[in-house]
Amino acid sequence: MRLRHKPWAADKLMQYPQYVIQNPEQHKGQWSKVFGNDHPLHIEVGTGKGQFIVGMAKANPEINYIGIELQNSVIVSALDRIIEEELPNVKLLNVDGEKLREFFEKGDVSRVYLNFSDPWPKNRHEKRRLTYKTFLKLYEDVLVDGGEIHFKTDNQGLFEYSLTSFSEYGLLLKYVSLDLHNSDYPDNIMTEYEEKFSARGQRIYRCEVKYPTNNREAE
Amino acid sequence: MRLRHKPWAADKLMQYPQYVIQNPEQHKGQWSKVFGNDHPLHIEVGTGKGQFIVGMAKANPEINYIGIELQNSVIVSALDRIIEEELPNVKLLNVDGEKLREFFEKGDVSRVYLNFSDPWPKNRHEKRRLTYKTFLKLYEDVLVDGGEIHFKTDNQGLFEYSLTSFSEYGLLLKYVSLDLHNSDYPDNIMTEYEEKFSARGQRIYRCEVKYPTNNREAE
Ligand SMILES: C[S@@+](CC[C@H](N)C(=O)[O-])C[C@H]1O[C@@H](n2cnc3c(N)ncnc32)[C@H](O)[C@@H]1O
Ligand SMILES: C[S@@+](CC[C@H](N)C(=O)[O-])C[C@H]1O[C@@H](n2cnc3c(N)ncnc32)[C@H](O)[C@@H]1O
Repeated sequence: MRLRHKPWAADKLMQYPQYVIQNPEQHKGQWSKVFGNDHPLHIEVGTGKGQFIVGMAKANPEINYIGIELQNSVIVSALDRIIEEELPNVKLLNVDGEKLREFFEKGDVSRVYLNFSDPWPKNRHEKRRLTYKTFLKLYEDVLVDGGEIHFKTDNQGLFEYSLTSFSEYGLLLKYVSLDLHNSDYPDNIMTEYEEKFSARGQRIYRCEVKYPTNNREAE
Repeated sequence: MRLRHKPWAADKLMQYPQYVIQNPEQHKGQWSKVFGNDHPLHIEVGTGKGQFIVGMAKANPEINYIGIELQNSVIVSALDRIIEEELPNVKLLNVDGEKLREFFEKGDVSRVYLNFSDPWPKNRHEKRRLTYKTFLKLYEDVLVDGGEIHFKTDNQGLFEYSLTSFSEYGLLLKYVSLDLHNSDYPDNIMTEYEEKFSARGQRIYRCEVKYPTNNREAE
């Protein structure tokens, strides 16, 4: 993502602690207190400017959302959207997604969204891809049993890689679309990157994968 | 496949019993005798006119191949190619692939190829798709432990369906290409349908999946 330096971004994020959660490690295992209800929690890693997570929060008031984004100059746009919409069910964390375990306990999260994650096309950067096995373990450590990852990208190589990485890890492929915008998937909420790349005629790939459940009844 | 009625096809197939195996159930568990060696056996279900299986047999003399095709008017073209090339390591069966268990014992086959299988796009025809779970069980019943299916198609819906069907069945996705002809996959041998559809600009999808092994060392 092209970054404009915004020296005021960090300050602005601090001014809205009801939306941008400070010291998130203090809420580990107790996110229902932050939201004031015990609705399921869905998180997005690499939220960017927040169009997706804010759109999802508007469309699904019975779900709680947390958008996680490393770059303060980007997440500040997500904050602007939340301020404007005054949404109670979406919060932001300006932190590194690699540190999820510090903020969430096993079972805190019911779904992880990954949208247009950085592709890291070089083999030697495989470990940085958000669908590399160490990340799949990280998500597992915060997800409920049978929790899901929902993943979208325009990047063919990253999508191919991710399908094999998910399979290797033992995840169940529940759904896959190789051309989301020409499929019958209802209620798609576009991300910023999705709008940009699909306008250029790029195909959008999407899949849903599920971690194993111990209780097979629950599947 | 558009069929031209060829009343002479059945007769011609009978005239080459060294290539078109008659009474294949008699060779169950003993295919090495038919080929005169104990090389691994790879089969293709729905061989059509045989361009793929004959090309593979030429390129890989240390593998035995069997092409299985229901329509005698189509498989007769595969026979013509084999006669011309005088290949010792490829045979044909003019039988229904649904009956694989009658011709092969567990462990007879090390790989199943499916190329441009009929897509059966209607939900109510799901059971006819060659990647439906009953077919995955059928292949399992003739394959070695850790045997593989290699699948190519231009049909997006069938490919999406098959990826989820494979996953649901517990197969490991080892390799996937979402645009075979623009990938770095070496030594691709085209089928008749592949030539036709790729000439029209259709993308070709390809994947390799693997059945579980009991012995994890062997993976
Ligand atoms: C290519 S952008 C996509 C943004 C948005 N999801 C979209 O689809 O428009 C990837 C974003 O992920 C963020 N990111 C990458 N690694 C991250 C990490 N470890 N933790 C949090 N955010 C990360 C980047 O800062 C960037 O904003
Ligand atoms: C769409 S064509 C593809 C032919 C060839 N594989 C290619 O890629 O050019 C599918 C072929 O599968 C054959 N077929 C379909 N079901 C079959 C079955 N149960 N057993 C054997 N062949 C079958 C059809 O007769 C047809 O020739």
